[in-house]
Amino acid sequence: MPDVQHHPATGDDAAMRRALALALHGPRGVNPQVGAVILSPAGEILSEGWHRGAGTPHAEVDALTTLGAQHGPDAARGATAVVTLEPCNHTGRTGPCAEALIEAGVARVVYAADDPGALSGGGAARLRAAGIEVVAGLRGDEGRALLDSWLTVQRLGRPHVTAKWAQSLDGRAAASDGTSQWITGPAARADVHRRRADADAIVVGTGTLLTDDPALTARRPDGSLYDAQPRPVVIGTRAVPQEAAVRRHPRPFLQDEGEDLPDLLDRLRELGAHRVFVEGGPTLASSFLRAGLVDELLVYVAPTLLGGDRLALGDIGVPTIDAQRRLDVRDVERLGDDLLVVATPRQARKSEEGD
Amino acid sequence: MPDVQHHPATGDDAAMRRALALALHGPRGVNPQVGAVILSPAGEILSEGWHRGAGTPHAEVDALTTLGAQHGPDAARGATAVVTLEPCNHTGRTGPCAEALIEAGVARVVYAADDPGALSGGGAARLRAAGIEVVAGLRGDEGRALLDSWLTVQRLGRPHVTAKWAQSLDGRAAASDGTSQWITGPAARADVHRRRADADAIVVGTGTLLTDDPALTARRPDGSLYDAQPRPVVIGTRAVPQEAAVRRHPRPFLQDEGEDLPDLLDRLRELGAHRVFVEGGPTLASSFLRAGLVDELLVYVAPTLLGGDRLALGDIGVPTIDAQRRLDVRDVERLGDDLLVVATPRQARKSEEGD
Ligand SMILES: NC(=O)c1ccc[n+]([C@@H]2O[C@H](COP(=O)([O-])OP(=O)(O)OC[C@H]3O[C@@H](n4cnc5c(N)ncnc54)[C@H](OP(=O)(O)O)[C@@H]3O)[C@@H](O)[C@H]2O)c1
Ligand SMILES: NC(=O)c1ccc[n+]([C@@H]2O[C@H](COP(=O)([O-])OP(=O)(O)OC[C@H]3O[C@@H](n4cnc5c(N)ncnc54)[C@H](OP(=O)(O)O)[C@@H]3O)[C@@H](O)[C@H]2O)c1
Repeated sequence: MPDVQHHPATGDDAAMRRALALALHGPRGVNPQVGAVILSPAGEILSEGWHRGAGTPHAEVDALTTLGAQHGPDAARGATAVVTLEPCNHTGRTGPCAEALIEAGVARVVYAADDPGALSGGGAARLRAAGIEVVAGLRGDEGRALLDSWLTVQRLGRPHVTAKWAQSLDGRAAASDGTSQWITGPAARADVHRRRADADAIVVGTGTLLTDDPALTARRPDGSLYDAQPRPVVIGTRAVPQEAAVRRHPRPFLQDEGEDLPDLLDRLRELGAHRVFVEGGPTLASSFLRAGLVDELLVYVAPTLLGGDRLALGDIGVPTIDAQRRLDVRDVERLGDDLLVVATPRQARKSEEGD
Repeated sequence: MPDVQHHPATGDDAAMRRALALALHGPRGVNPQVGAVILSPAGEILSEGWHRGAGTPHAEVDALTTLGAQHGPDAARGATAVVTLEPCNHTGRTGPCAEALIEAGVARVVYAADDPGALSGGGAARLRAAGIEVVAGLRGDEGRALLDSWLTVQRLGRPHVTAKWAQSLDGRAAASDGTSQWITGPAARADVHRRRADADAIVVGTGTLLTDDPALTARRPDGSLYDAQPRPVVIGTRAVPQEAAVRRHPRPFLQDEGEDLPDLLDRLRELGAHRVFVEGGPTLASSFLRAGLVDELLVYVAPTLLGGDRLALGDIGVPTIDAQRRLDVRDVERLGDDLLVVATPRQARKSEEGD
């Protein structure tokens, strides 16, 4: 029989699943969600921890601290630390976790996702140099998925912004008299609601709020609410009416004047929003695009022509063709009668082709 | 050995191929293109004919007349008539062909496509009632393809109209300053040229003519001309400049003031146009749509956003959402970076879905 005590494979995997679940106890925000479990050499859980946000201990230190408080400074000797993120190697507000693990006398470290940070990375190498056995990449996909939106926020320096709108094939949001319900069909609307449920915040302008009185909830086709609900955010100076549907949203709405969209996104990030869903209307969507603050577009195109002046997008700051906002089409889906075009902005470059 | 003289199978097929080729000698226009071959009982070609247009003899009568003029009234006794279209049973300007075949003493009739005409149909039954052997549907697909655009013209009472335009995803034809070349890429442009070659007429407004100076030819990607070239048609009162590229088109251009689009289509039909390709610009395309004169839309959607006021479509007469011009999307193709949406107008009906 192999050395079960030193390689408790089942214990590692179960512990990692636990650590992934613990990570979710932590808040979404400027710091990543991370979970950790300390296993005895026999594979029993000795303690658990997670990261509670910026300025608080990292998950593995949280778990070591709990263990030390209960069983004294030597309780982790020979133990295995199972962590969803590679222990950091960098003295921030909390000191490097790699050192803490070495000092605690941990024998093995198992982690899911590599730390991509230029400053914080390198923890695994530090641990190995100290003679600790390191297993990298256990449930790596899940570990990375957990970090995905946080990594995006790191890269962008702000939340990831999706702009969504529905339009006729000729780019109108409504008929000349403003009537628009419903351009797109039930399959497109169900898709929107599913995607709303993945967002942390859902943003509309006062124009849309006052015209359409949207609930801004993420609902299943039967009308029931998804478990996850984006936080509603209303942009503009006009007041939200007392009877507005958004006041019945399960999460309290925020209102912002919308004078400084980057600042608004910063504040949403501090509130834990990694993914922001901008649902319009045309004026607001155009502002986000003009400011270069859109990372993904979801354009639901209904097979209809409307003509007239109710455009789905207004002025996005393109005076001449060389300034056009080229997109990369990621996906084209048929949803019932409608098309969904998923696209991302391409780095600006001149159009190069002649006839 | 089977009765080769009575069933010259190879002879029938070769004769039908010949008849299909003869049909193309006839003009496209208000009458169908039809070809005919008279075979001796031994399967030799005795004479050929085709339909030369409204008011002239039908193909089989043309062939019988030629034969009679050369070899006397009994030359077709026992012969086989091979025709691309079911012989007509209706006295128009030329008398029913079924009767002419019976009188000529033809023993067999082989035809490709059934005559769908309410008045002209029934020829096969009439021939059979007279004791003539009738073989229907030989190379039926080719026979029907030959009639396809003519049948469409019959059904519509006018040429088939395709409106084509290129637009950004947000429905613009150009940037704010009017610059537009090139929104779409080479694959989309090659596709347009291929489709131009299938059209009988290509229509543009003076606005486009004066701005873009289009050649209105159907060209291969290497710049060479396709064999078939649509006839260029310029709509509007403004003069075509002496140096305009359209003056170098292999076919002479027509100009029309564009005050009566149905009348224009009638005249194009009389000139043999079954398929008309409306290439814009926005004002002209909107006029055709507003008048309900568009049978097919080809919308080349470039993955770009332009904003601004250079719309690919203007006023198409949709005051309110109930008047929207719903489309049936027939195909969505990716052409390089671009999308081609092929759609047909749906019969007007109210939008029926709620949220
Ligand atoms: N087709 C679709 O997908 C879709 C989606 C949503 C809405 N709609 C339609 O769009 C219409 C409303 O459009 P809209 O353009 O008037 O409304 P909107 O974009 O929802 O709201 C625009 C308003 O937002 C406020 N605002 C504050 N800061 C802003 C900023 N930085 N950029 C832009 N706006 C800012 C301003 O209001 P204050 O004056 O209050 O400051 C502004 O008038 C409705 O008819 C609705 O049905 C269509
Ligand atoms: N994206 C595309 O696919 C595409 C295609 C073509 C053109 N364009 C662009 O569109 C712009 C030109 O657009 P446009 O709208 O001014 O030009 P247009 O539609 O080509 O021409 C409009 C003109 O046609 C004449 N006309 C006559 N009868 C008409 C009728 N029944 N309906 C409509 N027009 C009639 C009128 O001119 P008269 O005053 O002479 O009578 C009218 O001003 C150019 O910038 C061009 O590059 C884009």
